[in-house]
Amino acid sequence: MKVAIQGELGSFSHEAATKILRRATVVPCARSAEVFDRLQDGSVQAAVIPIENSLAGSVAEHFDLLLTRDVFVHAEFHLRIRHNLIAVSGVALQHVRRVFSHPIALDQCRELFRSHPNMQAIPFYDTAGALRHVISEGWKDAAAIAPKQAARQYGGRILLAGIEDDRQNYTRFLLLNKSKVVGRGSNKTSIAFSLKNVPGALFKALSVFALRDISLSKIESRPMRGHPWEYVFFVDFLRGDDEPARNAVRHLGEVAEFVKVLGIYPAAKIERSGRARADIERA
Amino acid sequence: MKVAIQGELGSFSHEAATKILRRATVVPCARSAEVFDRLQDGSVQAAVIPIENSLAGSVAEHFDLLLTRDVFVHAEFHLRIRHNLIAVSGVALQHVRRVFSHPIALDQCRELFRSHPNMQAIPFYDTAGALRHVISEGWKDAAAIAPKQAARQYGGRILLAGIEDDRQNYTRFLLLNKSKVVGRGSNKTSIAFSLKNVPGALFKALSVFALRDISLSKIESRPMRGHPWEYVFFVDFLRGDDEPARNAVRHLGEVAEFVKVLGIYPAAKIERSGRARADIERA
Repeated sequence: MKVAIQGELGSFSHEAATKILRRATVVPCARSAEVFDRLQDGSVQAAVIPIENSLAGSVAEHFDLLLTRDVFVHAEFHLRIRHNLIAVSGVALQHVRRVFSHPIALDQCRELFRSHPNMQAIPFYDTAGALRHVISEGWKDAAAIAPKQAARQYGGRILLAGIEDDRQNYTRFLLLNKSKVVGRGSNKTSIAFSLKNVPGALFKALSVFALRDISLSKIESRPMRGHPWEYVFFVDFLRGDDEPARNAVRHLGEVAEFVKVLGIYPAAKIERSGRARADIERA
Repeated sequence: MKVAIQGELGSFSHEAATKILRRATVVPCARSAEVFDRLQDGSVQAAVIPIENSLAGSVAEHFDLLLTRDVFVHAEFHLRIRHNLIAVSGVALQHVRRVFSHPIALDQCRELFRSHPNMQAIPFYDTAGALRHVISEGWKDAAAIAPKQAARQYGGRILLAGIEDDRQNYTRFLLLNKSKVVGRGSNKTSIAFSLKNVPGALFKALSVFALRDISLSKIESRPMRGHPWEYVFFVDFLRGDDEPARNAVRHLGEVAEFVKVLGIYPAAKIERSGRARADIERA
């Protein structure tokens, strides 16, 4: 089975894909649109994409692609984002003077630079790409901040693991494929809809969930691509393919300009000590 | 007057700051938190920050900083994002073989690379930084994709202007300062609130606007920083500091865990031929 990701081998998307589909062959794509192209033309059977990060927010481009492409969400997965300092095998921590990574990763590891004032942070366009570069150049005074998967991929050695300042750093990934068959245990639905520009439209739209005691776990308005300042709403609600959910979506269709069901899938459990996922509301 | 921006001189934030505050001295800051630090400690009198882009979505970090820092939004401004091919003065278009820029900017100018197959796209961590690098190296075979402001800043020559594929590319910027005095003509309010995890909470929260015919122009749920999977809502509504708006916010306070007014300011006009801004609802 082939699974497409956006980005390099060794990236967090690669790490997520191998956790969701253990035996799959990962196909890296330069652009997100290419991930969806390959899924639609059948050259891969699945795709794994990041959709939101607990610190950085939503990946807007992926919401737009879910809206416009004929694919379906089959699972979600939360990956703890762990940054690591990785170098060419044989390089010791005290030899590292230059540290390459994506600016966001550098910024998320400020404590490393505070405690190692001899290290200089150098921005690079990608985390896994930074490690590949350091290793292909064979630099003895350099390291990269990159995912563990990148060390596996490019044969680097992890000098320091888990160097991110904020451990509450999770990315939610979605597993996509072309089939619209709803799997067993599905208890969460992602939809997109747009509203007529009339008084009370959003309030009415949310009433279809509130009236049926259906809880929302996410809501977001996005400008529609190509129509700036016209809005589409992305909502996740905590029901699978049951009667109340189907009624709510049908009812929403009476209020909305269009409704698209993006996927119906099992809600992921969050690996956190002793705390369950807090829903944003139990409408 | 000094105005802080995040990023390099020559960036889109710099361009936006000079359009909002024509005579201000722009103070570039490496990190967004530093922009807010400087505003709070008084070493700058204002800040200009991007908050959402019509293609790329919201700048989550800036929402989080608005939530936690003691600053106030005084104006909003929409900047058309225009990418330009810029090189060392004297370099002609046909000599350009390497084009440096941020991966997102490279991806937004795919038509350039299709029509100039001799040009190779090379990712760099920043658009304005890419031009500064090309110019400081004095490369005769290279160019950068960067804002017009970067050409002014670093003395580059614009070879091609407006090379972005999608012209519906706008970024919304906010002008911040410490004062909470509401200016004349203010007709838009940005608020943040969190909800108790009880049935119907969001529906109730939105009723405070619907009952008063107050239109929303944005809604977004964000995981709370440090409390993943607990949510805060960011809402913009189209009223200034009048009686119904004050009542709605007070009423919201009865439903919400907390409410913070992030700013009250005049809604920006969109420069678009013959079309007014479409609100997401006139609740």
